[in-house]
Amino acid sequence: MCRWLAYYGDPIPIEALILRRQHSLIDQSLHSRDAGADPTNGDGFGVGWYDELGGMPGLYKSIQPAWNDRNLRELSKHISSPLFFAHIRASTGSPVQETNSHPFRHGRWLFMHNGYVREFPRIHRDLLLAVDPALFPEIEGSGDSEVLFHLALTFGLQDDPLTAIELMAGFVEEVGERHGVANPLKMTIAVSDGEQIIAARYSSDGQPGSLYVSTDARALKAQHPDIEEIQGLSDEARAIVSEPLGDVVGAWNAIPESSIGVAKPGQDELYEFTPRRPGGNAPPKERVSLLPS
Amino acid sequence: MCRWLAYYGDPIPIEALILRRQHSLIDQSLHSRDAGADPTNGDGFGVGWYDELGGMPGLYKSIQPAWNDRNLRELSKHISSPLFFAHIRASTGSPVQETNSHPFRHGRWLFMHNGYVREFPRIHRDLLLAVDPALFPEIEGSGDSEVLFHLALTFGLQDDPLTAIELMAGFVEEVGERHGVANPLKMTIAVSDGEQIIAARYSSDGQPGSLYVSTDARALKAQHPDIEEIQGLSDEARAIVSEPLGDVVGAWNAIPESSIGVAKPGQDELYEFTPRRPGGNAPPKERVSLLPS
Amino acid sequence: MCRWLAYYGDPIPIEALILRRQHSLIDQSLHSRDAGADPTNGDGFGVGWYDELGGMPGLYKSIQPAWNDRNLRELSKHISSPLFFAHIRASTGSPVQETNSHPFRHGRWLFMHNGYVREFPRIHRDLLLAVDPALFPEIEGSGDSEVLFHLALTFGLQDDPLTAIELMAGFVEEVGERHGVANPLKMTIAVSDGEQIIAARYSSDGQPGSLYVSTDARALKAQHPDIEEIQGLSDEARAIVSEPLGDVVGAWNAIPESSIGVAKPGQDELYEFTPRRPGGNAPPKERVSLLPS
Amino acid sequence: MCRWLAYYGDPIPIEALILRRQHSLIDQSLHSRDAGADPTNGDGFGVGWYDELGGMPGLYKSIQPAWNDRNLRELSKHISSPLFFAHIRASTGSPVQETNSHPFRHGRWLFMHNGYVREFPRIHRDLLLAVDPALFPEIEGSGDSEVLFHLALTFGLQDDPLTAIELMAGFVEEVGERHGVANPLKMTIAVSDGEQIIAARYSSDGQPGSLYVSTDARALKAQHPDIEEIQGLSDEARAIVSEPLGDVVGAWNAIPESSIGVAKPGQDELYEFTPRRPGGNAPPKERVSLLPS
Repeated sequence: MCRWLAYYGDPIPIEALILRRQHSLIDQSLHSRDAGADPTNGDGFGVGWYDELGGMPGLYKSIQPAWNDRNLRELSKHISSPLFFAHIRASTGSPVQETNSHPFRHGRWLFMHNGYVREFPRIHRDLLLAVDPALFPEIEGSGDSEVLFHLALTFGLQDDPLTAIELMAGFVEEVGERHGVANPLKMTIAVSDGEQIIAARYSSDGQPGSLYVSTDARALKAQHPDIEEIQGLSDEARAIVSEPLGDVVGAWNAIPESSIGVAKPGQDELYEFTPRRPGGNAPPKERVSLLPS
Repeated sequence: MCRWLAYYGDPIPIEALILRRQHSLIDQSLHSRDAGADPTNGDGFGVGWYDELGGMPGLYKSIQPAWNDRNLRELSKHISSPLFFAHIRASTGSPVQETNSHPFRHGRWLFMHNGYVREFPRIHRDLLLAVDPALFPEIEGSGDSEVLFHLALTFGLQDDPLTAIELMAGFVEEVGERHGVANPLKMTIAVSDGEQIIAARYSSDGQPGSLYVSTDARALKAQHPDIEEIQGLSDEARAIVSEPLGDVVGAWNAIPESSIGVAKPGQDELYEFTPRRPGGNAPPKERVSLLPS
Repeated sequence: MCRWLAYYGDPIPIEALILRRQHSLIDQSLHSRDAGADPTNGDGFGVGWYDELGGMPGLYKSIQPAWNDRNLRELSKHISSPLFFAHIRASTGSPVQETNSHPFRHGRWLFMHNGYVREFPRIHRDLLLAVDPALFPEIEGSGDSEVLFHLALTFGLQDDPLTAIELMAGFVEEVGERHGVANPLKMTIAVSDGEQIIAARYSSDGQPGSLYVSTDARALKAQHPDIEEIQGLSDEARAIVSEPLGDVVGAWNAIPESSIGVAKPGQDELYEFTPRRPGGNAPPKERVSLLPS
Repeated sequence: MCRWLAYYGDPIPIEALILRRQHSLIDQSLHSRDAGADPTNGDGFGVGWYDELGGMPGLYKSIQPAWNDRNLRELSKHISSPLFFAHIRASTGSPVQETNSHPFRHGRWLFMHNGYVREFPRIHRDLLLAVDPALFPEIEGSGDSEVLFHLALTFGLQDDPLTAIELMAGFVEEVGERHGVANPLKMTIAVSDGEQIIAARYSSDGQPGSLYVSTDARALKAQHPDIEEIQGLSDEARAIVSEPLGDVVGAWNAIPESSIGVAKPGQDELYEFTPRRPGGNAPPKERVSLLPS
C-alpha cells in the first residue's frame, strides 16, 4: 500500500503539497494516519509533472525514502507545474528499484496506483500476455501497477479512459477468478494526459484504500477568508489525495467507494465505477453522475 | 536516535539476530517499540564483524533502509562471526551516506553509537580540533558519532578503553559547557577490539536511551529447556541490544543508567560510568563493580 | 557487453581475483583491453559464491561501478569460497538496477552472461512466453540474460546442462529467425551448481566475445617455480575469464569459438557447441571432446 | 580530475549542453579526450541552476555515473535556466557521496572545481581550521574542493571575488609549503552569484587542467550562418568548459594558464591570476586585462 497525490490548477511549486502542508506527503511517508495502511512508505517514490518543456511530462524517481532524499527537496522548490503527480511507495513484494516507482508514463500519459493485485505472482504472466505486444517492450519494472497501466492502455485508455479502466478492472477480476484468486483487485488510481486528472477508487471486496478530493477552491476561499494558504489557491485548483494534507474543516471530501471521477477545466465529473469483462457484449453503459446537480 | 546490537559468543550467522528473532533488528527498523525513540530507523545501516580473514573486521554499510536491502539478507546468511555489531540509523540531521553509517573502524577497533551530541553544529569544530591530528585524516563522515569515536581514540581507547570513554564524555561536556549547551551528550555505545565488547549507557541529563544485556546463557538454558533457540546458544554467548529481540521471560536485563560494562571470556564486568574532564588531575578512579559478587 | 570471471578450486578470498591481480576485474571495469568490447564496465556488478552456509549460494549486487563500491572491497576480503562468479556490467539498454545485475540464481544454480540478444525488445515477449510458467514468477529484472537463464532452466538445465544450453541457443535463433532478426545471439556464459562450472562461447555470427581458461595449475606451477602467486594455487584451481588477469606466459588459453566446457574435480571437458532447435527430433548428439587425449 | 561546464545567456534547457552536443558532458563522462585527464568521470555528478523560484539556486546531485542516471536526462529536459553549472566527478580519493559532488552552494553562490589539493589528507586539517567558524557547520563532505570554496568565502568571495580566490590560492600554497608539499594546488574553478560567472585556471606547477571559453556569440553567428544550433544562441550566450563540446571551427578558445575571467552582461573581463598570501601587506593589485582592447 502506498500514498499518492495529484494536483490540477494554476502552476504551483511542487513543494507546496509535498513539503509545506501540515500532513504533507513527506510527513505521510513516515507517519501515515490511515488505519488500514502501512505507517511507513519508505520504499522509493516518484514525481511526474507537466510543463511547457520536453514534450512528455517529466519524471523524477528514487529508491530512497522520500523523507531523506535531498534532491526531492531541491526539485520540489524549483519545479512549478499546473498538473503533477507524486507517489510514495510501500512495496508489497516487488523490488525497490526506480523502474517500480510510480508514476508510470506512456507518451503524454501518467499513471499511479495505491493497492495491489492479490497473489500477483500467480496471475502476473496471464496479465502480461494480455498487454498489446506493441506496448510490451515499454514495461521495465516487475510490479503489478505497471501492468495495470499497460492493460488500461491496451483497452483504449487514450481514447476512452473511463471505459478502459473499467475493462482493465474487469479483466483482472476475470483472470483472478480463472486462477481461484478471490477479490483480486484493490486500487485507488490516477491517470492524466496533462489536461485532466482521472481518479478511481475501487476494490473487488468493496474495501478500497481511502481517497479524498479537495473542496471547490471558490467555496473554500469563501469559507476560510482568514487562511492565507487557501486564499492563494486558483479557482480551478483541485487536489486528489490518499490522505488529507491537513485539518482545515470542510477542505477534504471522501471519494465514495466504486466511483471514478474527472477533474478538468469547468465542471468536474463523478460516476459509478463498474468493472467490465472485456469481450462481453455489454451495451455501452450510461454514466450516471454522482455529483449533486 | 538509532538502534544497535552487539553479539559475542560462538560463531553464528549474522541473520540469527538481524532477521530471525521475533523483534529482530530488521523489525526494529520499521517498528521500534521504545517510547522515547523514533519508530522508524530507515536512514541507512551498517554491520561490522570479526573473522579469521582480512586482518581488520569487515564492514558492510548502506544508505538504504535495512528492511529492503537485499544484500543485507544475503550477507547475513553467509557471514558467520563470533563477534559482530549491527546498527540501524535514524539521522538527527547529518546526511544519509555510507560514511555516516555505523559502525566506525580504526584498525581492529569498531565503534557504534545511539544518541547524539546536542547542538552538534555549534560545537562540532571544537570537538574536531581536539582529535589527534594523526587520526584526523581518518574521519570521512560528517556526523557526531564518528567524532566521539576519534575523541575516545585520542584519549587512549586502545590502551585503557574504560578511562578513554569517560574522558571523551567529560570532554564533550566541558566543550558543551563552554558553548552554553546544556546536557550535551546522550549515548549508548559499544566498542570492540575483537576480543571483548565494551558498552556504556550514559546521558548528561540522566536519561540515556535504553540498553539491555542478555542473561548468562547457562542460566537461560537451565531456565528454558524447551526453547530450541536458547538451547542452541553457546555458554559464553552474550548480546547487548538497544531493544530486547523477543519476549522470553528473564532473557533481557536493563543496563543501569550511568554504567559501563565489558563482555569477554570468563566473568563479565559492570562499573559505574563517570565522565572525567581531560587534564583534570583527578586521581585514578577505583572501579566499583555493579555486579552482585 | 560485460566482463566476468568464474573460479573453481580450494577456497580463496574473492579479492584474490577481483582486486589483487595486475588486470583484475576491478581494473577491467575501468580499462577493458578487449578491442571489441566497451572500455568501461560501470553499470553495476554482482558476485555469487558457494560456501557451507545458507543452502543457496550467496549474492551481492550493486548498481554502483565496481571500482568505487567500498562494500565490494570489504566483502571480497572477508568472503572465501571454493567456487565463485563475479560480473561487471556494461548495459546494452536495460536499466541499471540490482535485478539486472548478474549472476542470476535458481536454487543452487548460478548463471552469468556477456553478450546480448540482438533486437531484444522485438523478441523479448516471445522468449518470455516460452519460459516454464512455474519459473516465470522468479524473473525480476528486465534484461535479456535473465531470460536466457530461465529458458535454459526450462529446457532442463538442472538435468542435462549442456543440452539445455544448446536448446536455449537454438530456440533464441529460431525466434529471431521468425522475427527477421539476423544472428540474434551472442554469448559467453557460465553456469554452476556449486560442484562444477560450465562455460560456453558462442555467437550466431561466429564472433562471440573473448573467453579464456587458466592453464592446469600443476603445469603452471612447474613452469613458474618463482612466481609466489602461482605456487599458491591448489592443483584443481581453474579460472575462466573474459580477459586474462595478467601477463604470465602460458597462463591463459583462449577457449575456441562454438565450444562448451566443464571444469570439475578430475579431468575437465571441452566439446563443440551446436545450438539445437527445441522440438526437433534430432538424435542425441555424440559429444566430441576438443581436448587432446 | 573532473570535467565541468558553466553556461550564461538566455534561458536554455540544461540538456542543450549536457546531452545534445557532439561531445556533450555525458559523452565526456565516458570518453574524455583530454590527454592529461581520466578518460572516465563516473564518480557521481551534480548540476546547479538559477531560476525565478526557490531563492537559492537549485541543486541535483547523484552518486551514479552521469551516463546512466535517468533522472538527469529527465531533469535536463525540463529545467531551463539562464545560468547553470554541471560537473562530472572523477574522485581523487574522497568517497563517492552526494555531499562530495559539485557544485557546492552558499546562499546565492555556487562553486565547482576540477583539479586537486596535492596530499590533501596531510594539510586538510590546517585548511579546515582556517575556515571562518561561522561557515564551518556548512561543510558536509570530505573532499578538497568544498574546503577551497569555504576558504574563498572566508577570504571575502561575496564582496571581492577575484581577490578572495587569489587569497585562497595563496593560502593553500602557504600551508602546503609549511608541510613540505610542493606545488599543492591545481585548479580550474567556476563560481557564480547568479549574475556573473567567474572562472579561474591556475596550478602551482604551471600546468593546470584545460579550460575553454566559447567565442562571442555575435561573432560566431556571423561566422557560421548555416549552423542552426549556433544561430539559436542569444547574443550574450557564453559557455566555459573543461573540454570543447564539439568541433565547430573558431567556437572555442583556450583560457590562458594563470588567468581569471568574468562572464557577465556587457563586456567580459580576463585578468592575470596571482595567488596572494593572506596577511601579507601587499598593496591592492592593479588588474591588467588580458583581453585585446
